[in-house]
Amino acid sequence: MQLPTFEDIQKAAVRIKPYAHRTPVMTCTSLDELADARLFFKCENLQKVGAFKFRGACNTVFSLSDTAAQRGVATHSSGNHGAAVALAARLRGIPAHIVMPSNAPSVKRDAVAGYGGTIIWCEPTQEARESTLANVVAETRATFISPYNDARVIAGQGTAALEFLEDVPDLDVIIAPVGGGGLISGTALTIAALSPATRVIAAEPKGADDAYRSLQAGEIIPSINPQTIADGLRTSLGDLTFAIIRQYAEQIVTVSEEAITRAMHLVWQRMKIIIEPSAAVPVAAVLDQQIDAAGKRIGIILSGGNVDLGNN
Amino acid sequence: MQLPTFEDIQKAAVRIKPYAHRTPVMTCTSLDELADARLFFKCENLQKVGAFKFRGACNTVFSLSDTAAQRGVATHSSGNHGAAVALAARLRGIPAHIVMPSNAPSVKRDAVAGYGGTIIWCEPTQEARESTLANVVAETRATFISPYNDARVIAGQGTAALEFLEDVPDLDVIIAPVGGGGLISGTALTIAALSPATRVIAAEPKGADDAYRSLQAGEIIPSINPQTIADGLRTSLGDLTFAIIRQYAEQIVTVSEEAITRAMHLVWQRMKIIIEPSAAVPVAAVLDQQIDAAGKRIGIILSGGNVDLGNN
Repeated sequence: MQLPTFEDIQKAAVRIKPYAHRTPVMTCTSLDELADARLFFKCENLQKVGAFKFRGACNTVFSLSDTAAQRGVATHSSGNHGAAVALAARLRGIPAHIVMPSNAPSVKRDAVAGYGGTIIWCEPTQEARESTLANVVAETRATFISPYNDARVIAGQGTAALEFLEDVPDLDVIIAPVGGGGLISGTALTIAALSPATRVIAAEPKGADDAYRSLQAGEIIPSINPQTIADGLRTSLGDLTFAIIRQYAEQIVTVSEEAITRAMHLVWQRMKIIIEPSAAVPVAAVLDQQIDAAGKRIGIILSGGNVDLGNN
Repeated sequence: MQLPTFEDIQKAAVRIKPYAHRTPVMTCTSLDELADARLFFKCENLQKVGAFKFRGACNTVFSLSDTAAQRGVATHSSGNHGAAVALAARLRGIPAHIVMPSNAPSVKRDAVAGYGGTIIWCEPTQEARESTLANVVAETRATFISPYNDARVIAGQGTAALEFLEDVPDLDVIIAPVGGGGLISGTALTIAALSPATRVIAAEPKGADDAYRSLQAGEIIPSINPQTIADGLRTSLGDLTFAIIRQYAEQIVTVSEEAITRAMHLVWQRMKIIIEPSAAVPVAAVLDQQIDAAGKRIGIILSGGNVDLGNN
């Protein structure tokens, strides 16, 4: 098990620069008033494929040797990571095999297909995902890209916080959602290196609080049948992300489904940008007063914007 | 009748700078592919009150003498202009009286109330609006701020194009929606002064095509019972905006309701930003091939983002 270093994150930033968006940081007076804080939003919903996941996938795909790359890449994903791997592979001109559960949101299925990824369907269980993926990898000799438990992926995700600090150097708190833990791990490593006084907080749905319980227990306790609208956060920590979060994240806060939905609609309404439920989780943590925000400068990473809006 | 000059627009830019957002210009690879053009989106949906209307209202409110300002301001509006006047008045610390039709979208009603404007309800007809407004003005001696037919308002709206050209100086075409004509008039004046080679095109719903018919006829032909989802574009031209459009706008194109809805959903999905139907009208004009876009650099002003998203 090799943890990524801050140098890996710096290298990732250089590697993905030709392909990824430098996403904007937005502010919103009316949400500041609601939170009684100064909020800064790093808009990864405006990233390629509509999610931060492109950073990690892109870094990994472009880290491969030519020989490995030619055999293609493979992953399992309920959506954003799959789309990210598919697009990164297309940009490198190599095949991508994406194992998806049959209940993935249509907008995420369409995205993977649109980027030219080959979709392999499976039952919506962790076991089915893993066995299906193992078969694909055995058959194609493609490189497996974990959605989060991979040093290259974590290093890629850490580039969002790197840009964030360049734009807003004096954050009191930075808060990101935690599912598998790739984003918060990369964020924590960047903050530890560049702005150690900034508090790193992970936000998690109460209905999928494996990270919260794992940190309490001191060992990984996987989610069993997690129930949350935040479909990107139903996965459980891996050993890499658990080790990083345990060392670098100050706190994990959990939020209710009602708070997530309310926060998501507030961002749509007031900021005029579309975020998905997972991205609303840290917003909910602030607006629902799960963290001590009063008067603080709070950085929130809006992780993605892929949500079915009904009649679109 | 006094037409605004480009100098008025430059002064407006200075006057509103402390209050208005400098909105970003966004691009989107997948929409470029659909349009076979390079598209630049000036995001006035991210402006204060969620619409370009704040520019004109703010310029007008801050142009008033202290004596006039103390008596307050008044207007009639189905929404965005009302919210814009209410916020501008709050920023100057003066009263705002907003006459609104009883069928205004709830998100727009809430906005006016939220900014501290006093709402006076009326029947949803032009006659009711005007007579109700006349009563309000007689009673309060407030200054009427026209939604579009006022040189100060037009000058304010022209500041969006001014910023747009600073960010993207070499546009082949600039396209904006036309309702009352304030935005396209201000845009046309700015382009004429700074970038005369850029073609200025107005986009209008087929179901509210008074500007198209007025230009054909050479006189103002008001809309009678216009039918379009683009609620911001149901108004008809005024004498000021008609004069400017006739002189400076190259072309008016009209688009179907289906094209408007399709364009709006595409922007939501691909760009992850919320635009209202009126803002989708120029996007529809490009995607539905109503203008010769192939290979061109097209600037689109996304006029606003205030739309009821159902369950929010």
